[in-house]
This record gives sequence, C-alpha cells and structure tokens, in this order.
Amino acid sequence: MPKTPTTSTPTSGAISDSEHNIDTLLFADWIITVDADDTTLQNHALAINKGCIVDILPSAQASAQYNAETEHQLSGQALIPGLINAHTHAAMTLFRGLADDLPLMEWLEGHIWPAERKWVSDEFVHDGSLHAAAEMIRSGTTCFNDMYFFPDITARVVDNVGMRAIVGLILIDFPTIWANDADEYISKGLAVYDHYRSNPRVMTAFAPHAPYTVSDQPLQHIAALAEEMDIPIHMHVHETAFEVKQAIEQTSRRPLQRLHEKGIVTPRLLAVHMTQLNNEEIRLVAENNASIVHCPESNLKLASGHCPVQQLISAGINVALGTDGAASNNDLDMLGEMRTAALLAKAVANDASALPAHQALRMATINGAKALGMEKTIGSLETGKSADIVSIDINNIETHPIYHIISQLVYSTTRNQVNNVWVAGKQLLKDKTLTTIEEEHVLTKAVEWQEKIKQYD
Amino acid sequence: MPKTPTTSTPTSGAISDSEHNIDTLLFADWIITVDADDTTLQNHALAINKGCIVDILPSAQASAQYNAETEHQLSGQALIPGLINAHTHAAMTLFRGLADDLPLMEWLEGHIWPAERKWVSDEFVHDGSLHAAAEMIRSGTTCFNDMYFFPDITARVVDNVGMRAIVGLILIDFPTIWANDADEYISKGLAVYDHYRSNPRVMTAFAPHAPYTVSDQPLQHIAALAEEMDIPIHMHVHETAFEVKQAIEQTSRRPLQRLHEKGIVTPRLLAVHMTQLNNEEIRLVAENNASIVHCPESNLKLASGHCPVQQLISAGINVALGTDGAASNNDLDMLGEMRTAALLAKAVANDASALPAHQALRMATINGAKALGMEKTIGSLETGKSADIVSIDINNIETHPIYHIISQLVYSTTRNQVNNVWVAGKQLLKDKTLTTIEEEHVLTKAVEWQEKIKQYD
Repeated sequence: MPKTPTTSTPTSGAISDSEHNIDTLLFADWIITVDADDTTLQNHALAINKGCIVDILPSAQASAQYNAETEHQLSGQALIPGLINAHTHAAMTLFRGLADDLPLMEWLEGHIWPAERKWVSDEFVHDGSLHAAAEMIRSGTTCFNDMYFFPDITARVVDNVGMRAIVGLILIDFPTIWANDADEYISKGLAVYDHYRSNPRVMTAFAPHAPYTVSDQPLQHIAALAEEMDIPIHMHVHETAFEVKQAIEQTSRRPLQRLHEKGIVTPRLLAVHMTQLNNEEIRLVAENNASIVHCPESNLKLASGHCPVQQLISAGINVALGTDGAASNNDLDMLGEMRTAALLAKAVANDASALPAHQALRMATINGAKALGMEKTIGSLETGKSADIVSIDINNIETHPIYHIISQLVYSTTRNQVNNVWVAGKQLLKDKTLTTIEEEHVLTKAVEWQEKIKQYD
Repeated sequence: MPKTPTTSTPTSGAISDSEHNIDTLLFADWIITVDADDTTLQNHALAINKGCIVDILPSAQASAQYNAETEHQLSGQALIPGLINAHTHAAMTLFRGLADDLPLMEWLEGHIWPAERKWVSDEFVHDGSLHAAAEMIRSGTTCFNDMYFFPDITARVVDNVGMRAIVGLILIDFPTIWANDADEYISKGLAVYDHYRSNPRVMTAFAPHAPYTVSDQPLQHIAALAEEMDIPIHMHVHETAFEVKQAIEQTSRRPLQRLHEKGIVTPRLLAVHMTQLNNEEIRLVAENNASIVHCPESNLKLASGHCPVQQLISAGINVALGTDGAASNNDLDMLGEMRTAALLAKAVANDASALPAHQALRMATINGAKALGMEKTIGSLETGKSADIVSIDINNIETHPIYHIISQLVYSTTRNQVNNVWVAGKQLLKDKTLTTIEEEHVLTKAVEWQEKIKQYD
C-alpha cells in the first residue's frame, strides 16, 4: 500500500504534526486490499474524504494523523473492496424459484419467456431492481453490470439507492414491450445513455442479447457506436453447446468468429458464460483483450457446460465473475459465487491448486472493474480510488480459526457476515440495516408479485 | 401426514373435546415434512411430547386440541427435519483453512498429516468437536456421522451438548496417537461401543479409514463384528482415480471388489465419496443395498472427481450427503452442501432436471437416516419420530418471492437463516443463540489453537 504522499492525494499518509480534517476513518482488524500484490494488513485504518480513499495506514498512526468527522471501530471485521457483479438481470429477482430443475429449453420457452411476456413492465422492473439492489447491498455488492428491459428504470433505482451500476442498453431481434425493432432499441438506448452520461455512479453499456438473437446489421451498428461513445459491450456468448452447433448449421461458423468479423471482439467486450471454447478462440479473446464473465452457478443450474477458468487465466485473459439473474442461480450473492467459482475451477481443471482463493477474490473485484473499464476508480482498496468498501464480520465460529484471511473470506464466509457497505463514501448498509431502501417495502412488493404471478404459472 | 389417531401415538390429531397436555407446540408458516410424498403444509403446528413428534395439524385445531407447556409462534419460519451430516471429521474444524488450494497429495502429506501428528490429542479433539458441534447446530444439523481419532472424546462432547451422532470406531493400518495396531484400534473401539450402547443419542459405527489404509484381516474382522453388534460401517471408498489405479497395480482388482470379497458391501456400509464407479459397481452397490455418501464440496475442492449422483439415484441406491471435514470444504454447513449437490449434479448428468431440490433435501435428511439405520427415529417430520427439528427464517429478501418452498430452501437459503434447533425435543438453538455451548468459549479456544498451530505451518 502507498505509505508516502502522492500529488493526487494531498491528505495521504505523510507523517505530519498537524491533523488532517477528513470525512471518515474506518478502523478494522484486517484490510484486504486486492492491490497488485494482494496485500493484506492487520490493525490498519482506511481514511475517506469526499467519497475517495485518501490513505491506508496503521491504526495508531491514523488516530494521530487524522481528524475525522465520523469514526467506525470495526472490531472483528475485515474490509474488502465492494464486490462487482459483472453479469446479472436485476429485475428477474421477482422470478426467483419460479421454474427450477427444468431442462434449459423448457425453462426458457415454457416458463421464463411466457412469464416475461405476461409480467414485465416498468413497474415490474422498478420493483425487481429495487429488490435486487437490496439483496446486493446486503451481500456486499456495490456495483453491477445489468442487462434487461427498461434500463431507464433500473438506472433510476440505482441512482436513488446510491449503488453503482452499468445498465445494459438491450437489443434483441424480436419486438418486446421495450422496443419494436433494432432502430427503436438503439434510439431508446441512446436516450438512456444521454440522460446518465454525466452521472458519476450510473453508466451504460451496449447489451446485444446473444449471437443467436442479434443479426449482423445491428451488431455492426453497435460495434461502431460503442467505439464512438466509448462504452462497453455486454453480451451472452457461447453459453451452451447447442448455441454453437445451431450457429454452425445456420451460418457455417461459430458465433465468436462471427462476432469477431463484425468488430465486436475488442477490449470493450464482456463475453458472458463462454462455456464452449477451443484453443483458437481462447487465443482470439486473449489477443483482442476482451474480458470473459464467468457465471458458475447459472452454468451449473442450467447444465450449460463449464467455462475453462484456469485455462483462460493462464492465457492472460481478464476473467470477471457474475451471478446471472436470480431465476437461474437463485441469488445475487457474490460471496457465494466466489466460493463456487473457486471450488468448481479445481474440478474443471482437474487440479486442486486451480483458481486459488485470492484469484477468485480478484475475479469478484478488480477483474470486474477492468472488464468495465473502471479499474482506475473501483475494484481495490487503494489511495485515490472511490470509497466503495464492504466490512465483513469475521468474528464467527464459522470463520475461525484464521490461518489465511483470504481463504476464510472465500471458502467460509456467507452473505450474512456483511456488516457495512459504502459506495463513493456514502454508507448504504449500517450494522446490517439498509440505509436507503425500506426492507419491509421490498418484502411487501415481492409478496404482491408472487401472489399475482403464481396464479398463472 | 397422518390426520387420524394411530395406536402408537395416543395424543395424535384426533378431533376431541378434551385438551391433551403436552410439552411443546410449534406454530409455523410452513412445515416441510420430507415424508414419502414430500408433503409441505402451510399454517400448521407440530406437537411434541416426551421428545417425540405426537401430531402435525392445522394451527387453529392445534390451539383447540392441545394444552402445551411451551408454545413457539414461529411466524415467517419453516420447519424442516434436523439435517443429517452423513460424513465428517468434526475435530478437524481446528484445521479449517490451514492448507487450501493445494494438490491433494501435497495437502495430505505436506500439511494435514504432519499437522495431525503434531497436534491431535484428546484436548484437540475435545475443542475441535465442540467447535464443530456449535457450527453444526447453528446451521441446522442435528445429527452427524463422524470419523476421527479419540471417538470417546467426540462422543462425550455430543452427549453433553445434546446433539445426536454416530462416532466412528476408527481403524487404520499404521500406529497413531489413538492406537498402535489393528487389535488396539478394535479393542479401544469396542470400549467406546460398550460405554454408549444404551445411550439414546450417541451411537457408534466401525470406521475403517479406506481400502488403501486397511488390510484384509482387520476388514474381515470388522465385517463379522459389525454383523454381531448390529452397527454400520463407515468408510472412504473410491475417493480418487489414483486410489483405484494404485489398488489395481497392487492387488489386481478395484477396491470395491476387494471390499465385497471381504464382506463389507452390505446394507450396513456407508461408502463415502465414490467418485469412480463403473456400471458393474453401481449394480453391486444397488444389489447389496449399501448406501453412498456424497460430499460434493470436498470432491470439488480436492479435485477428486465427480460422484454420479443422478445415476446412483436412478439405480435405486440410497444416497446421503456429507460435508467432509472443515479442512477440505471449508465448513460444516449442510444447507450449503445441499445447494452445491443440487447444482453440481445437473452439470455432471448434463441435465438441468437432475437432482431436483426435493431430492437434495431428502439426501440431507431421510436418506442420511436410512444410511445409518435410523429412519424409524429421525430424518422426517412425522408422528412417532423423535423431535429433531429446525426452524428456518424465510421472511427474508433473499428467499422471496416464494413460488416453491423447497426450492427456496435448497437454492436460496443460507445457514444464518437457521433460527431454532431441537434434538429429541430439547432446544439447542434459541433465536440463533446456542443454549448448551458458550460461543465465546469456542472462539477463544479456536484462537488459542490458531496461534499455536500457525507458528509451525
């Protein structure tokens, strides 16, 4: 960690006789920085001013050096960077558990698509996004990369509750309640982009649904626009073997090859799932610096196949982590997802040393930030970055003894151990209680939707 | 569920003008019975008298019909049978996270075995077993099937804290702190058996470690004794491909075949792991009515291979569920293990409808009871069975909406939602607080061992 002053951070840890006035000091037993060296610090403090991390230093020094408006003594707690859920469909929390244990096509065609046609509206997306935000904050996620209808509504919810998100400007070949054709999808997307372009916490990305649902022309249009607007492209790619087989039959080539031809495989791309990859494709992704988003629980639940995570990491590819939507997971819990990723990668690689705990944590933090082009702002606890911070209660029977703190975090910690959450310095969870969302309201709405939806399922 | 009186339960749900005096009434939003039909009931009550379930009936009727000494209004909660952890090494919780992300042999030979040689003692087993008991009760496990050194100590801990367990009378070819040779392992085991033979909650099983660590003569001796004493045999079998390959080289046959020749493959056998099975072996296990214990998280973490769960169930084999020890998991959380089992089975079977939620719940309850020969006493919530009951808080954002209650339990519930636990009618967890174990004492001991052990690792 930087222990000397830098020009960009006038209040950093220089030894000084005079006290610096700052907003907040967090004193914690552990700070898990996820910096380049995976540094972990014991009995350190983290100083926050104007929404940014301005210093990380030994607790005793911090008390002498800073005069903070608010001090938090986080005894028995570890600070980690806010978790980044790199792929989800937030509003689908209202479909959680609606159709489990079904073959993929029966799940999609017999349940999820009909339910979406019947129920998705601006009100549904509002209530579902708010529910998802509550669940994500409670489990330590501060930023999510979303793909769903009514991105304007999800953006408004995120802005209101104080989280950080990248809302996907969805595009799909067929008409939906959100838009009728490619031109309308794009023009409505551009309106959302314009509305939020100067918002510090709500960003946008193009979200063409998948190779099998988006035709060549809109793909090329998106490739050009993304470059011009400087935003990411968020897309399901090679989720199942069926998708690849079908594409070969219909287009005589594999979907990733087609995306490459249309200019989509660039550093802007977050290719989600990627369970079907040959060596040539892994090279293609690596050479073009695209990112891959791994969603292990969704891939398991839908029997979609395995993403070869360790092989991708060895090839130098940036791999982030996502939960997918709650209809195929069935939660938005990134702590649980890290654990599943770390466990599953070992079986897939047939090597118990594959995806060690610290790499799984990187996937859920800094790698997500890199995939979204936000690694200068979020993804690690370092001076100069935004104060997107989570404190975890480790003073539990279930996380003791502690031989290696990152191991305990990844393999033994569950979501209920998240105590406090800050985004850009603002506290969104305080001693396990949401500060910007009324939990009772969320539960009431969930039951209302449940009663309506279950009558028709 | 029985709604009419039966001869064995004089206080069952017959409509009657006179009130019955009983010990306890539990009123819950849901009762998930895990009976033969996987019945779930809303707004019912469960009546307990003298440690047994004497009735399950609609809440309104229960109030009229029973006069209970204690009543619990478990609003927003679901009752499930106490979870049964069919394979663990309880005392190893003190090694949790000591050596993660390592290849299997380096983990075992370089870390776990040396640590065991250095640290395992009666005091270690006492503190580790107590820690494990606290963790298991807090996560809804009421009964566990253990294998470790000093089974007498683990038995005493279990007896004191009020849980139910089957302690393994361990046998391994080489000398350890517990015994020097096969005769001593057996005679010390028999002493533990004698001491606990009339205990209603502490049972014993033979626990020959594994085919590759137990030679023919003690195996045959155990086969004969188990029959005579009428107790189970608990053994690691076919955990890895390496084990099978090595056995073929050394004995010219696969380990399961050798066990069968020695009389071990009977309804008494709990064969743990079983990641390497051909069709002939699946038939052998099915024909001999042996049970298999699946430990998905340990198998993933050590890259041991996959147990073909759906195939075993289709073959009619009784499959139970275990966490294994906390050194290879890294928790003793059966709710999490159910979820991993249900998710992983779909990928292994390449079928999203494999191991549906209700079957995963059966593995963690009634199938464990069957494997241990205890299905008449525990494993489901039915009149006449022991009152081994867990209440789960489902009034959470993370478990809403509720379309299918068993789906929510298996795919969305985490251990912290366990509110109350009863074993044989005695409450061991009350509003998330342990009643028979001092949590602070367990944490203090964990830190003491951690400080000693980490100096040497």
